[in-house]
Amino acid sequence: MHLLTFASDNGPRLGVVDHEGGIVDVAARDPDPAFSSMQALIEAGPEKLDLLRGVVAASGPSLPVDAIQWLPPLPQPTQMRDFIVFEEHMRMAGWNGARLREQWGAPPAPSEPPPVPPVWYEQPIYYKCNRFGMSAHLDQVKWPSYSRVIDYELEIACIIGTGGCDIKVEDAPKHIFGYTILNDLTARDAQFREMQGPLGPAKGKDFDGANVLGPVVVTADAIDPAALRMRAYVNDDLWSDGSSATMHWSFAQMIAHVSQSETLYPGEIFGSGTVGGGCGLELGRFLKHGDIITLEVDGIGRLTTAIDAPHVPQGVRL
Amino acid sequence: MHLLTFASDNGPRLGVVDHEGGIVDVAARDPDPAFSSMQALIEAGPEKLDLLRGVVAASGPSLPVDAIQWLPPLPQPTQMRDFIVFEEHMRMAGWNGARLREQWGAPPAPSEPPPVPPVWYEQPIYYKCNRFGMSAHLDQVKWPSYSRVIDYELEIACIIGTGGCDIKVEDAPKHIFGYTILNDLTARDAQFREMQGPLGPAKGKDFDGANVLGPVVVTADAIDPAALRMRAYVNDDLWSDGSSATMHWSFAQMIAHVSQSETLYPGEIFGSGTVGGGCGLELGRFLKHGDIITLEVDGIGRLTTAIDAPHVPQGVRL
Repeated sequence: MHLLTFASDNGPRLGVVDHEGGIVDVAARDPDPAFSSMQALIEAGPEKLDLLRGVVAASGPSLPVDAIQWLPPLPQPTQMRDFIVFEEHMRMAGWNGARLREQWGAPPAPSEPPPVPPVWYEQPIYYKCNRFGMSAHLDQVKWPSYSRVIDYELEIACIIGTGGCDIKVEDAPKHIFGYTILNDLTARDAQFREMQGPLGPAKGKDFDGANVLGPVVVTADAIDPAALRMRAYVNDDLWSDGSSATMHWSFAQMIAHVSQSETLYPGEIFGSGTVGGGCGLELGRFLKHGDIITLEVDGIGRLTTAIDAPHVPQGVRL
Repeated sequence: MHLLTFASDNGPRLGVVDHEGGIVDVAARDPDPAFSSMQALIEAGPEKLDLLRGVVAASGPSLPVDAIQWLPPLPQPTQMRDFIVFEEHMRMAGWNGARLREQWGAPPAPSEPPPVPPVWYEQPIYYKCNRFGMSAHLDQVKWPSYSRVIDYELEIACIIGTGGCDIKVEDAPKHIFGYTILNDLTARDAQFREMQGPLGPAKGKDFDGANVLGPVVVTADAIDPAALRMRAYVNDDLWSDGSSATMHWSFAQMIAHVSQSETLYPGEIFGSGTVGGGCGLELGRFLKHGDIITLEVDGIGRLTTAIDAPHVPQGVRL
């Protein structure tokens, strides 16, 4: 199933794409509390997901897809992490950042990409996102006031269904509710600045609307995330073209790593990190005021975002 | 006021320490939904906080402090960040880490502490915590299975009351609900390992119970956080003795920094980071199975935690 969240006068509603491409307003067909939101459905477990199939298969009214206002599938996720599981991004992004900073007056970058730290091959590496900084398909994200260099990141994400602790790799797939697309919008100048400290990205990733999620969640039974083509378009120009087949770590491995001595809860989001070549930093190109970015992942859909810059600040400070 | 959360058969309850040191079960005196939890009180705003003063001042039954089971003041905070605002910790912790890793077979550490990155003096540096990983005063925290080197960190934390975006430094104090103590338990070996990657701490900080919070929240009107003595005891031996007067960045400055183009919400937690000398890493000493750690901050109280290690894993892997 392709699930979504859309806006109504009564707040966010759970929707399902029916076999004709219309949107089923689930709560209008069945008042079961499990269908009151995406989070409620996730928490209710697999049995309610099966029930939902029946509700959607039954005949009834649906909404035209153009008539709905999209919300992030999880408007306020319980928690959100983002990883770096694509080797090309890991190898190239830091080096390209150093080359960019060199243009801004920093010391010269190395002449070729430095080696990837061995730890990256030994365990999945991640940070935690601002769970309040979500935006949806067709949203206009406001350019953060403190940045001049905004970038997209082309990612897929999994959503935890059943929680748990010390989950084994072989059991981890059972804990995945579904998959969606993530555009991890990034203020590169802020990110480079703060990552000269030891604690990783912060304001480089943390601004309102920076985590664009959606448009739909494809339930885990309906998609194999192992080899999905992933593309990014800026104003209809193809900028990025990659595949989830190049993931060095699987979602199952990420779940097993994080859940060591740590309980995971329904609705937590794990982002894959940027596919190789899946951001402007790797291409030497960045977004400008008014750009339209569309991320497309085969089997999931197309996630479109506008970037608004009412006043682009001047000067890049390292 | 000194506010707390305690366990009852009906779930978490909001408590207030009365003038005789007893615990007022607030909802038992007044069924106002604003008093149903710490988070509800924070969201209800300053007016309800004033009402609460009246409820507590009125005569009525209270519970003996020894009779309650403490919970974290916010059992599941809306979001949680931790900063590094103490210069001594910033200067010494990384170097001490390198010296420790040298003992474990890593390349030699520099002969003296390397300079602090300039960015640290230009803006507050932070990462985000696992908001599900909370524990309370008198809890026993389970030693994470993947670590041999567990450390405490002596911190104070502020709790956001009224949310907002683009909050100016001079307005920021009005957005602080209160202050509490934070023991940011850390798996040093895991932290050192993963921080060889670019994204900062992850499993070094993320395990069940790692964020020990409490015992009380002191409302912002009742305490000035500018010069509080901060001490840590391990099994009653004084290990750390510092002061919040050595903070390089104030909570107001942290709030102003984070809230740039980013909305803060009621109940978010900002940890100060470790006071100088406020962790075993800076002292060359670490916790062992069965240790009792008590953090004491003048004006707030004493926060005690036991560390349990049912099976301490063998060997440190870098």
